[in-house]
Amino acid sequence: MSAVVTEKPQLREGAFGHATALSCRECGHQIDLGPFYACPECFGPLEIAYDFPQVTREEIEAGPRNIWRYKALLPVPSDIELSPNTEPGFTRLLDAGNLARELGLAKLWVKDDSTNPTNSFKDRVVACALSAARELGAKVFACPSTGNLANAVAAAGARAGIKTVVFIPSNLEQPKQVNSAIFTEQLVAVDGNYDDVNKLAQEIAGEEDGWAFVNVNVRPYYAEGSKTLGYEIAEQLGWRLPDQVVIPVASGSQLTKVHKAFQELIKLGLVEGKPYRIFGAQATGCSPVSVAYKAGVDAIRPVKPDTIAKSLAIGNPADGIYVLDICRETGGAVEDVTDDEVRDAIVLLARTEGVFTETAGGTTVAVLKKLVESGQLDPSAETVVINTGHGLKTLDAVSGRVGPAATIAPSYAAFAETGLAEA
Amino acid sequence: MSAVVTEKPQLREGAFGHATALSCRECGHQIDLGPFYACPECFGPLEIAYDFPQVTREEIEAGPRNIWRYKALLPVPSDIELSPNTEPGFTRLLDAGNLARELGLAKLWVKDDSTNPTNSFKDRVVACALSAARELGAKVFACPSTGNLANAVAAAGARAGIKTVVFIPSNLEQPKQVNSAIFTEQLVAVDGNYDDVNKLAQEIAGEEDGWAFVNVNVRPYYAEGSKTLGYEIAEQLGWRLPDQVVIPVASGSQLTKVHKAFQELIKLGLVEGKPYRIFGAQATGCSPVSVAYKAGVDAIRPVKPDTIAKSLAIGNPADGIYVLDICRETGGAVEDVTDDEVRDAIVLLARTEGVFTETAGGTTVAVLKKLVESGQLDPSAETVVINTGHGLKTLDAVSGRVGPAATIAPSYAAFAETGLAEA
Ligand SMILES: Cc1ncc(COP(=O)(O)O)c(C=O)c1O
Ligand SMILES: Cc1ncc(COP(=O)(O)O)c(C=O)c1O
Ligand SMILES: [Zn+2]
Ligand SMILES: [Zn+2]
Repeated sequence: MSAVVTEKPQLREGAFGHATALSCRECGHQIDLGPFYACPECFGPLEIAYDFPQVTREEIEAGPRNIWRYKALLPVPSDIELSPNTEPGFTRLLDAGNLARELGLAKLWVKDDSTNPTNSFKDRVVACALSAARELGAKVFACPSTGNLANAVAAAGARAGIKTVVFIPSNLEQPKQVNSAIFTEQLVAVDGNYDDVNKLAQEIAGEEDGWAFVNVNVRPYYAEGSKTLGYEIAEQLGWRLPDQVVIPVASGSQLTKVHKAFQELIKLGLVEGKPYRIFGAQATGCSPVSVAYKAGVDAIRPVKPDTIAKSLAIGNPADGIYVLDICRETGGAVEDVTDDEVRDAIVLLARTEGVFTETAGGTTVAVLKKLVESGQLDPSAETVVINTGHGLKTLDAVSGRVGPAATIAPSYAAFAETGLAEA
Repeated sequence: MSAVVTEKPQLREGAFGHATALSCRECGHQIDLGPFYACPECFGPLEIAYDFPQVTREEIEAGPRNIWRYKALLPVPSDIELSPNTEPGFTRLLDAGNLARELGLAKLWVKDDSTNPTNSFKDRVVACALSAARELGAKVFACPSTGNLANAVAAAGARAGIKTVVFIPSNLEQPKQVNSAIFTEQLVAVDGNYDDVNKLAQEIAGEEDGWAFVNVNVRPYYAEGSKTLGYEIAEQLGWRLPDQVVIPVASGSQLTKVHKAFQELIKLGLVEGKPYRIFGAQATGCSPVSVAYKAGVDAIRPVKPDTIAKSLAIGNPADGIYVLDICRETGGAVEDVTDDEVRDAIVLLARTEGVFTETAGGTTVAVLKKLVESGQLDPSAETVVINTGHGLKTLDAVSGRVGPAATIAPSYAAFAETGLAEA
């Protein structure tokens, strides 16, 4: 499986469920399903095309309590649950009343993907990529990663019994390094930023046979996994769409797929059609999409990332232009926040809702706050903010800010002296 | 709410669901529901007594995807879902085929509570304690903790909008400290071990009014939360009991409650009655229950803990004698393992099943392995091992063992030199 394979692999019937073809996002050209990710006509990105069956809410609700309840809408075989996988998804949608009050919002929900198997939304996309890798007969399961993806790939590969090789920038947070190395012997640190690591992965994908790079040569399958975030939000709201959603943007894949999910649900009659606005969140230190949005331009100028939100530190985002399209079309926006705002927002979310998010989630909550304050987000409309990762992975971002109020001897007198009983 | 309150608080109708009384585990004496935890007759521990309604599998299955699906069997009001809480439970029951093969077991499941809201099973017990604290009109929500409980209390309190004060040994792992401090201003580090912290909490509970110490003066309500682990295992097996369960033991509460849950399910006709064996897991550096088990005695001699399994480091376990009873009665055992075995088991579970557990889970898996090797556990019988916490909280236990295989320049040539492609 090289970067662009030309021969058609032997596929079993139904290997990709109701998917029918790979379709170019740019020119619409269609090709057969396989390990391809770039259009042979125009080099545009390929996306999965489907012939969806009539799916009912009841069928979905009767499914497993993970992303496979939506398997009919994903490029996976109908027996997907039988193959070992991490069983991600169906995470909490929390009614965030305290944070709503704090920000002056009428209704706010936190979609909390920090409780996924490896504590980020990446378990969703990796589960779909794993299925594709398996069906395509890949021998190695690999990725370039800003951290969370590596965790998810390494864990899923361990459980599936397939060799994994994961590539990360060498300056990555230590918890994310250990959280990959615990699962795989083949964690490779690369001296460079994510965009360098990504380029290396593309090279390797071109050189090595049988490697499935989840976000490179099986990216079309991988990316579909993020649709489940959109499906779950709608189902957990009682089969309704929210008015506004705030989503972090690294490559931009997740944001585009949540939008795709909403559109599919409407087309399938699973929810009523209605307008909704999609907002993208970036850290100022890596905000190529936000910069383009604010400048009112269509092209995205790559940047060299410098932010504590390392999981969002993609300077050359593959789906950035689609993020711009979607946020503009739906009446949303793309906004960015400083590292200090990110840290404040991590503490804010924790203190109001009991959810400890990583820097990516801090970014998203901080952008939510900024959008309210600037009037870009309607405070009277129902809003969902997606928490995509866990604070334990980016401990250093806040470890200087929070800690014990006091260290005392084990006696009531020592405690009384702290004054904490009265606080 | 002092340690033993004598007046009856004003309770609303149905404050504790179908619970009818507090009943002494030792002498059977019953008293009215309230903020009590010790028998006024014999000072034995109090447990919740119920008059259960006829609950059906269908009613449970139609409930929310968290512990409140079992609310009819818990000491909580029928509208419990309406009060902000962390919505814990209904975590994955993973078919652990790889680990089973590795250990020579016919069938093994991992009940994975590391994906709970604050990444340990403690979210379950805290959710029940929070309900009791609320119904009893407590002003402060507090606990002495070996780490995970503090995380859960601080998060639940933040979300519920009730003041929290959490006490931990000052030598606790840094991730667990941050994971409490992120939620509360009142994290108190105590120079001493857990048993010292626990004693201090009992003192404070006696001095301060309106403090609900989840595992001290509302312990009877708190402890019931662990029953949901047992309920879920049975439901997720298709309303069946397993043959063998391996459970970590600190205070011993969880183990006794999983057994209670199984017994209740049998009595309620929700599962068929059958024999099962319960096994307790401790770290050798804090193994008072295992020592008593092996010595064949009934009394537990307190120890001074010295182990990396800090979350299990309770030297004077409140429910230790009940653990002995249950493990002996059911034909199980209590076993202990060294810190090195704990580390090995953390890596083993990760590499086979893609689950990153903390030292408590490492202890449990290592004990499982030892029980198989010593012939105490039947390899042909269906076994469940409970993973109660997350590896990101005890990173230091393994950070010396795993890490990047190589750090390279971002070029294919540099990668080729590592030899990892061929590995
Ligand atoms: C925690 C977290 N949130 C959000 C994202 C953004 O994902 P995408 O690349 O789909 O925009 C990432 C990507 O790595 C991530 O790790
Ligand atoms: C991760 C973990 N597992 C197991 C236990 C044991 O719980 P118990 O005190 O109910 O025996 C604890 C207690 O703190 C814990 O933190
Ligand atoms: Zn094209
Ligand atoms: Zn008594």
